[in-house]
Amino acid sequence: MFRKLSSVGYALERLLDLCSPVDEIEKIPIEETCGRVLASDVLSPENLPSFNRAAMDGYAVRSEQTRGASQSSPVQITEHVRVRTGAALPDGFDAVVMLEDSFLRGRVLEVTAELTPYRNVSRVGEDVRAGDVVLGREHRLRPPDLALLGAVGIGEVDVFTRPRVAVIPTGDELVPRSSVPAPGEAREINSIMICSYVKLWGGEPQLSGVIPDDRDSIKRVIKRYLGSDLILISGGTSVGDRDYAPGVLEEMGELMVHGIRLSPGRPTAVGSVSGTPVVCLPGYPVAALASLYLLVRPAVKRLAHLRDDVRRRDAMLSRKIPSRPGYITFARVSLKDGVADPVMISGAGILSSVARADGFVLVPEDLEGLDVGEQVEVHIFE
Amino acid sequence: MFRKLSSVGYALERLLDLCSPVDEIEKIPIEETCGRVLASDVLSPENLPSFNRAAMDGYAVRSEQTRGASQSSPVQITEHVRVRTGAALPDGFDAVVMLEDSFLRGRVLEVTAELTPYRNVSRVGEDVRAGDVVLGREHRLRPPDLALLGAVGIGEVDVFTRPRVAVIPTGDELVPRSSVPAPGEAREINSIMICSYVKLWGGEPQLSGVIPDDRDSIKRVIKRYLGSDLILISGGTSVGDRDYAPGVLEEMGELMVHGIRLSPGRPTAVGSVSGTPVVCLPGYPVAALASLYLLVRPAVKRLAHLRDDVRRRDAMLSRKIPSRPGYITFARVSLKDGVADPVMISGAGILSSVARADGFVLVPEDLEGLDVGEQVEVHIFE
Repeated sequence: MFRKLSSVGYALERLLDLCSPVDEIEKIPIEETCGRVLASDVLSPENLPSFNRAAMDGYAVRSEQTRGASQSSPVQITEHVRVRTGAALPDGFDAVVMLEDSFLRGRVLEVTAELTPYRNVSRVGEDVRAGDVVLGREHRLRPPDLALLGAVGIGEVDVFTRPRVAVIPTGDELVPRSSVPAPGEAREINSIMICSYVKLWGGEPQLSGVIPDDRDSIKRVIKRYLGSDLILISGGTSVGDRDYAPGVLEEMGELMVHGIRLSPGRPTAVGSVSGTPVVCLPGYPVAALASLYLLVRPAVKRLAHLRDDVRRRDAMLSRKIPSRPGYITFARVSLKDGVADPVMISGAGILSSVARADGFVLVPEDLEGLDVGEQVEVHIFE
Repeated sequence: MFRKLSSVGYALERLLDLCSPVDEIEKIPIEETCGRVLASDVLSPENLPSFNRAAMDGYAVRSEQTRGASQSSPVQITEHVRVRTGAALPDGFDAVVMLEDSFLRGRVLEVTAELTPYRNVSRVGEDVRAGDVVLGREHRLRPPDLALLGAVGIGEVDVFTRPRVAVIPTGDELVPRSSVPAPGEAREINSIMICSYVKLWGGEPQLSGVIPDDRDSIKRVIKRYLGSDLILISGGTSVGDRDYAPGVLEEMGELMVHGIRLSPGRPTAVGSVSGTPVVCLPGYPVAALASLYLLVRPAVKRLAHLRDDVRRRDAMLSRKIPSRPGYITFARVSLKDGVADPVMISGAGILSSVARADGFVLVPEDLEGLDVGEQVEVHIFE
């Protein structure tokens, strides 16, 4: 039995307390920065545009010379230059008259609209002024941001390094995915799920080999990965006589949480060794998935300076979801046309239940299930 | 002037008609398939589990021998085997009695609970049966799916190849990003935005060099990329005397749409050459962004067999958004605590307006703007 079950909220708080956003920095070319987070404010070295630029096809003119011009009383101008969109305005000219507001008779331009200064002109520095902060520290870079950086002549930027997340599969029964498991054996499959999520969530997974259920081996592998920003141990986290990971944490550092009120996902532990946060994830894959989403995702996002922005959809329940009071229930649902249909096979080991699901609904711990017809928020699986 | 402006809806319909989901297939190792789309149903070659597996720590027993057992009248069993979670049940045994429901006295096990067959046992094929479709054609692979494939011994799968999207920047005024533009010149920056989005949306960008504003050069580059699944031409799409792209389309194939009622984004064209769909994107970066989101995104997703699942948030407008009736207005907004704040600098060339925005709101064409306090749906920029 677990000595004391913690709420998911408490476990998350303890874990986030241990996770400081990574402050290491790397400089990389802007074309590789999509999705990365700026480590410092980026100041523009230049004005954008760097010259007064025609914003339309037409004629560059001196705006003062168009005073009083209208359809009924055109003004005649002799100083004008034909310009195309994007062209530099010649010195002394400060506006562009559109083709439809003008008519060329020989060398004389008839203008039928009065222009204010800089009409149809992108002025120097109108978009960005030299010295302006174009993008701030902690900004997550998106494709148009890369174009903006490029536009002001910036080719490389400082971004935060991705948090390194050690992923340690444990278990005497585990064999490589390429093997055929004998009775009593199982393929090691959790790490492919964990590593893929770590990548999606902005981290850099570092996968260890499979570690046997043995106190010393677990100690050694934890020591080896103490330089990481987060250690995830998969399996051996419950209260059986070969579940060593939580005990090892207690011995090497601190064990803040062992057992959480999450179903599936109870055998989850949170601790730290020499300042490195450690999460022990259940060996059953669906339980591991629940812990990943509820604890590891916010932790990795925090380490990576990213907002925790789960994709959500509102939906109506097609059927009742039973739940265990006192526990947050992680219920898989399929989603179609605004209706969420619970995937009924609910065992923590039943991976195929996730394959059929589009996302999950959380049943709060103070409820005994959710009723048919209730409005729920579905978190879409990435 | 444009001969005939089309609605965004019409332009999108024409474009999607031209885009058939790519049916080329590649076989890749499952660890590289995250986000990819299955090209065929995947059948399990094995049962999962492949043996009757203890789902608990306890004793394997024959369930029939526990008949009538209860706390008050325990049953004594001599045939039992200690098993750990995950172990294979020995032949002839069909249930596992939990430690808390049993007590070992010498060689005799006292059982205090009656067990039905397969109680606390994961039966052969309970998760997946050999021959079952574990994941269907067109399924987008997510991390738990990779674990499921791994669990049944599948190391490689057939996925659709990513659609190849040619990205062709055009314009005499364009210089490389590493150059300092002289008056009248501009750095070529749209392609970094377009290519990054194509990647995010599931495509494989193929970037050409910068093409001059010249009919023959544009023809040649289109011919060169006719093997692509989609061609995106950036710039030269309006009605000026050097806007050759739409005319070239008309000459080489078909021009279905030239000019759409999107603000910014009007100088957008849709056509096809020898069956390859072509979109001409405005040269102004914000206009290009609007066309990318409203037309190119759904097209690339369709080619890639992906659902078009924009991330949305409901919000309340902090200020009025003015708009041009008859046009869909692509209004950039920043988003905080459920309040959407329009980014007021609205020029199609003002890239910094996007840097300050979290997403966009679409003002429908039949409205004259949106009022302060209105509920809007914000599409979050990827």
